[in-house]
Amino acid sequence: MKIGILGTGMVGSAIGNKLVSLGHEVKMGSRTANNEKAVAWAQGAGAKASQGTFSDEASFGELVFVCTQGAGTLDALHAAGAQNLKGKILLDLSNPLDFSKGMPPTLFAGNTDSLGERIQAAFPDTRVVKTLNTVAADIMVNPGKVNGGDHDMFVSGNDTAAKATVSEFLKTQFGWKNVHDLGDITTARGTESYLPLWLRLWGTLKTPMFNVKIVR
Amino acid sequence: MKIGILGTGMVGSAIGNKLVSLGHEVKMGSRTANNEKAVAWAQGAGAKASQGTFSDEASFGELVFVCTQGAGTLDALHAAGAQNLKGKILLDLSNPLDFSKGMPPTLFAGNTDSLGERIQAAFPDTRVVKTLNTVAADIMVNPGKVNGGDHDMFVSGNDTAAKATVSEFLKTQFGWKNVHDLGDITTARGTESYLPLWLRLWGTLKTPMFNVKIVR
Repeated sequence: MKIGILGTGMVGSAIGNKLVSLGHEVKMGSRTANNEKAVAWAQGAGAKASQGTFSDEASFGELVFVCTQGAGTLDALHAAGAQNLKGKILLDLSNPLDFSKGMPPTLFAGNTDSLGERIQAAFPDTRVVKTLNTVAADIMVNPGKVNGGDHDMFVSGNDTAAKATVSEFLKTQFGWKNVHDLGDITTARGTESYLPLWLRLWGTLKTPMFNVKIVR
Repeated sequence: MKIGILGTGMVGSAIGNKLVSLGHEVKMGSRTANNEKAVAWAQGAGAKASQGTFSDEASFGELVFVCTQGAGTLDALHAAGAQNLKGKILLDLSNPLDFSKGMPPTLFAGNTDSLGERIQAAFPDTRVVKTLNTVAADIMVNPGKVNGGDHDMFVSGNDTAAKATVSEFLKTQFGWKNVHDLGDITTARGTESYLPLWLRLWGTLKTPMFNVKIVR
């Protein structure tokens, strides 16, 4: 499958490496062609890996992963182009973290709004699914590293079929066992505003290699 | 032990019933003496149960549980009186839920603030510990009803000894197994802003009888 990745950071690299290892063709997009980090990633990741602008990447991908820092997400998507994203499933992994006021970061969207909703509103013809934003990059693609893979992931979005496709993708490609459909894209408020707790737990546990398991 | 409970709702009743069943003397406080719900609770809960004003309750309790709706918490505490709460450990179970804009509720404090912090700021001589606000009332006092009690609770507060006392109380009195000290009272932002996710999970799971277990 041809997959586009917006963002050249830890999350983009982790997702890209995993997808290439699974045999997918992956293009990493950044603001400019030949971005240093994107080139280094594409060279290191093998023959199925390539890089280009956000626009190159969005037109390439049948599926698009948003792995940018939250503050840059909407700009990156506008650079990618609504036409290139039209009708496609877009997995939004970004979080509305604001690092400008020191640590821990605060949220620049929340409570009555979310970054997921802003993306869906700005790109109404794209099938936005918020997911994977509640765990560290390494866990996103290797859930088995935590509790034998027995813990929980969430999807939020307005398109039921898109959420089903993403849930199946997370299970078959990354090894997720439990994926909960929380509801429409407004439920991204739930997973995004979990980040403040996640950040404190990282501090308490001294590692980001944890997740929550829903128990009844 | 003499314990005061602010609030006459489901949470206050659940905490009160459990504490009476454990042999504690419990006074439930409300805005006015002889509040109908408080009187009914005290009559039904047995000889160790009593009721009175917020002020009566605060001066009675060696330990005080805040079980009011979030919007009424600070008013209730001001009615209880700073002098009556001085030096005492106050377990803040309330959440800053705003039901005025429809369902699901939004938060009236969060991100750069929390209800726990507002309480600690308003009552600097009281030892505020935010806890139990992440689960349904029945689970607060009966954690064994979920996954055999193997799931997680949090405490936030500026007073380390108070948090240790509360953690021990939750374990020995209510049966909690895992209690994480998240840090100072600003970490209440984490557990309070988990509520939007908790509310969506309730919708998805069709029951509030769940909790999260931290897995590594």
